[in-house]
Amino acid sequence: MKTEFIGIGSELLYGKVQDTNGSWLAKNLHSKGLDFQGITLCKDEKEDILESLERALKRSDVIFISGGLGPTQDDVTKKILADYFGKKIVESEIAASIVQENYQRYGKEWKPDWNHYHHIPEEFEVFDNPKGLAPGLGYYQNGKTILAAPGVPKEFRSMVDEIFLPWLTEKKLISTKERNQIVVRTHGVPEEMIFNKLAPTLWEDLSQFGSLSSLPQVLGIDLVITLGEGSNENEVLNRVKDVIAKTELSNNVWQWGNLTIEELLVKNCNHKGITFSFAESCTGGLSSHRITNVSGSSGCFMGSAVTYSNQAKQNILSVDSSTIKKFGAVSKQTAEEMAKGSREEYASDIAISWTGIAGPSGGTPQKPVGTLAIGWATSKGVNGSEMVQYSGDRDWLKKRFSEKGLLKLLELVETY
Amino acid sequence: MKTEFIGIGSELLYGKVQDTNGSWLAKNLHSKGLDFQGITLCKDEKEDILESLERALKRSDVIFISGGLGPTQDDVTKKILADYFGKKIVESEIAASIVQENYQRYGKEWKPDWNHYHHIPEEFEVFDNPKGLAPGLGYYQNGKTILAAPGVPKEFRSMVDEIFLPWLTEKKLISTKERNQIVVRTHGVPEEMIFNKLAPTLWEDLSQFGSLSSLPQVLGIDLVITLGEGSNENEVLNRVKDVIAKTELSNNVWQWGNLTIEELLVKNCNHKGITFSFAESCTGGLSSHRITNVSGSSGCFMGSAVTYSNQAKQNILSVDSSTIKKFGAVSKQTAEEMAKGSREEYASDIAISWTGIAGPSGGTPQKPVGTLAIGWATSKGVNGSEMVQYSGDRDWLKKRFSEKGLLKLLELVETY
Repeated sequence: MKTEFIGIGSELLYGKVQDTNGSWLAKNLHSKGLDFQGITLCKDEKEDILESLERALKRSDVIFISGGLGPTQDDVTKKILADYFGKKIVESEIAASIVQENYQRYGKEWKPDWNHYHHIPEEFEVFDNPKGLAPGLGYYQNGKTILAAPGVPKEFRSMVDEIFLPWLTEKKLISTKERNQIVVRTHGVPEEMIFNKLAPTLWEDLSQFGSLSSLPQVLGIDLVITLGEGSNENEVLNRVKDVIAKTELSNNVWQWGNLTIEELLVKNCNHKGITFSFAESCTGGLSSHRITNVSGSSGCFMGSAVTYSNQAKQNILSVDSSTIKKFGAVSKQTAEEMAKGSREEYASDIAISWTGIAGPSGGTPQKPVGTLAIGWATSKGVNGSEMVQYSGDRDWLKKRFSEKGLLKLLELVETY
Repeated sequence: MKTEFIGIGSELLYGKVQDTNGSWLAKNLHSKGLDFQGITLCKDEKEDILESLERALKRSDVIFISGGLGPTQDDVTKKILADYFGKKIVESEIAASIVQENYQRYGKEWKPDWNHYHHIPEEFEVFDNPKGLAPGLGYYQNGKTILAAPGVPKEFRSMVDEIFLPWLTEKKLISTKERNQIVVRTHGVPEEMIFNKLAPTLWEDLSQFGSLSSLPQVLGIDLVITLGEGSNENEVLNRVKDVIAKTELSNNVWQWGNLTIEELLVKNCNHKGITFSFAESCTGGLSSHRITNVSGSSGCFMGSAVTYSNQAKQNILSVDSSTIKKFGAVSKQTAEEMAKGSREEYASDIAISWTGIAGPSGGTPQKPVGTLAIGWATSKGVNGSEMVQYSGDRDWLKKRFSEKGLLKLLELVETY
């Protein structure tokens, strides 16, 4: 049973919009044990859509399409699917009632001539759209299934989860099973060092458990083992731990699992009843944004003082003006005072601070772009700071800076 | 001259990693007037790569490949390209010296048996990697060019910009020209309302200037007109403005251009010498993160107090505890006090605040998930607040919440 994804929309191919439906679908279907073949993005032009469709029908059994179902004239998916399968477009009563109900859900009235949402290729399946207005479409022929949903991510996602997958399962067109993966998340050592110096036989040793991938992350490397059918996940995890314990890599593992660091922090802190707060200069709110993306973060995260100006560092975090004057805003001393100030202002158990130079401007010979000082303070009197140097552009540096501080927080939470 | 992109890596197809190289390349090549055909993501398995390669060679002249050039055993791109074109893999002295220099740049020593970065298909072009270690590859045959770079975004991007595009231009394999686009960014009115109610003939009226797309954004719709060759951008822009001025849509345009709202804010505030700050509860630092992604934001952005707890709202922003008790943390009154507190603490000209319920938990019948209060305060005594209601999941709501407040800030900056 092979599946794949076609994203339709010229905006995806002049870089105005980044497709995220493909990657989301990939993760979703892969985790259900379905073989996901590929992601194809094509313009909303007839020839391109037909070529992509034909290729997909050749190699896959279920094809998910997103985009091109909207109300404007560049939304051509319906017409092209109808032409391809030799169907006329007709007014569908089922579709009209779905659209009408969707409008009512948002307290609006629908006028059919606004968008022709109820015009559907004849003999096509019509599906509800739980998070939007335009209905989805399906067609089954010669063992191949085509399913089309609007491109707006929340509409696409809910349609796949709530409509398409249950429908495919009910019609026995797919059978899903959980696919087990073991993820070992490491930091502090580059990929080639792992496989050449720290653990030269690791690739072979881990490959015995399943299919291995090595994935560089913002800081560090994830080792991912996709297990074969019938493997016992816990048993294999213990054997993987044994293998790695015998190598020098063991000190670099920060998680035997696949949570993001922010998810892991929220989980551990809520479990242990630890609260934390931030003081952010160079990360500019990114660390706080990441933590608050996690539902439940309000149970442990008190907040973050984003202090871009020196004045704000003094006013809000009580950083001493003489510290900034003597050592600079980007210094271990300022970082430590920022962390202490954040802990006090937010009344948190642990505080982490970031001050550094994300560039492109602001670097000096002594403190070039990429310089980062992090500081920390805990209610148990564990205070400190560290200075490191990274490379990259502004966007990448903010990410690496943030990661470095969150890894430090994880370490402090573990020993708190 | 047609171009396209193939991203290689199984991690892209089980959703562990979201490809961003394709979208970045699309934007880059499109803006240079090159015809960009498609984005294809495939597993790092021989059959899949060959199928994708063959399809690309059939329809495009220049094919950019990312991924599969790393040091581990799942990095198979070199071997497959060699096989496909019937070449042996040989040790390349040029490649070895490039790799050695790259290692030296990072102050490291290179041992050839660590990664075989210098093993290259014979007769292939070898390219430097300005931001990484592994070299890039190129091959030209029968009018078709293949260019391969590592998948790490900063390496891929710098290789395209600094190496591949200059090389293609020098070899006369491409000729670039600026492609002009007009972007009209609107908010506050849904797509179908624009084209049915506010401006029923707008699609036809704007299509006379070029190829029109209508792109839903986080809040609002972008209208994008890609101009034909030889069009005068300024002249067309004025004619587009005339067309829209005659419709009811004119009040909903927030920008005649293609900057992000955060870029536009930083530009306008630096130009006018206006400073601003935030107080964020439900957006959790996202607004601050967005602003600080813009280089130059330190000229106008003072910072943001991310206050998740009520205690922090009181301590840092001086919100009155009786206000929270009487009206709730999510209320117009609390929002306005948060904004005033932020303006005072950060000594800014304008402050914006957000307090709301991003969900999935925390909603009540009176204030369901999606409820947002924004507040504002200026040094000229313009204070106020507004309450709105959105739908979506946590991630989407944070984005919409943030956008709503930034639009308000833009309005305040315009009239300040």
